[in-house]
Amino acid sequence: MKHSIHRAAAAALLILPAAFITRLATAQAEGSKPADPARPDPGITQIPEGYRDWRLISVAREEGKLDDIRAVLGNDIAIKAYREGTLPFPDGAVIARIAWALVPSEENDKAFGQAQSFVPGAPKNGVQFMFKDSKKYAASGGWGYAQFGEADGRPVVDEAKLAACFTCHQPAAAQDFIFTRYSLGGLAGQK
Amino acid sequence: MKHSIHRAAAAALLILPAAFITRLATAQAEGSKPADPARPDPGITQIPEGYRDWRLISVAREEGKLDDIRAVLGNDIAIKAYREGTLPFPDGAVIARIAWALVPSEENDKAFGQAQSFVPGAPKNGVQFMFKDSKKYAASGGWGYAQFGEADGRPVVDEAKLAACFTCHQPAAAQDFIFTRYSLGGLAGQK
Repeated sequence: MKHSIHRAAAAALLILPAAFITRLATAQAEGSKPADPARPDPGITQIPEGYRDWRLISVAREEGKLDDIRAVLGNDIAIKAYREGTLPFPDGAVIARIAWALVPSEENDKAFGQAQSFVPGAPKNGVQFMFKDSKKYAASGGWGYAQFGEADGRPVVDEAKLAACFTCHQPAAAQDFIFTRYSLGGLAGQK
Repeated sequence: MKHSIHRAAAAALLILPAAFITRLATAQAEGSKPADPARPDPGITQIPEGYRDWRLISVAREEGKLDDIRAVLGNDIAIKAYREGTLPFPDGAVIARIAWALVPSEENDKAFGQAQSFVPGAPKNGVQFMFKDSKKYAASGGWGYAQFGEADGRPVVDEAKLAACFTCHQPAAAQDFIFTRYSLGGLAGQK
């Protein structure tokens, strides 16, 4: 059981507690496209427009089953809160996680004169979001979680995966359930 | 000799041909702070303001002596050119490379139930920029290169390092001397 929760976490990390799917679906309905009748009620169905233009919070390398390189981006509200150390994050903060396969770069390695350089390949492990709304998502720490498939952009609706979300984010409760820390701009002491 | 060039490239990657230091210093003088009299003429001395807010081009993992995880950011002109596939990059494009030590995350590993997660530690290997100006930097492929120390923000002025720059970027001539490719936003086919 514990293992399967970890596996679900490894597959998704940012996911939506099943208990709130219906509530979220209702809350999001106004801004949503018509539901696909072939799919069960999917909770948060909309990928925030323009998220790829959001500013960088940090990067990471995940080994194991995830085996990716990733970037975590934040909308303006999230970035401001990170830089000012505001906890909990204010309503309206949205955090995005994008990831890619990590592949050797033959071109870079030639320039370096040795094998050492690994760069993003195809998108991998979906695109994930955390939406802060302390009222709407009060029962899951104020965050609504969502994941979209990297190949088709469709939301994850697997309740077994979704149920593991809040549980797995509990260890980060002191940072408002956010694991990712803000990374400085390459200069010590700089924000 | 070849080895030392590669080593210099590994240390800097984006650096300024020595032949153009004086020219660049002159060209940049208007926007520069007063020179530090204790340093030799350093070429591009100013870190572009607000570069940490620029949008993400891609990420990478460098092993070997560099041993870092890095993000490449672009100003608006650079991002637009990347997304539209414009080559060569238009004048005014600036590309930034920031990097950090890659350290295990005990907190993340606990949540995953195994050791797999690596995140940025301290800034490392300086902050690097490429400035596109096809006239000013015509002799180095239209790019001016600069590197600033991660601890003190001071520009690299080591001519041995600076001289290796354009040479090492030659293999990427077909991409206007830029190694880094734009990475999609986690969804196949998306820009």
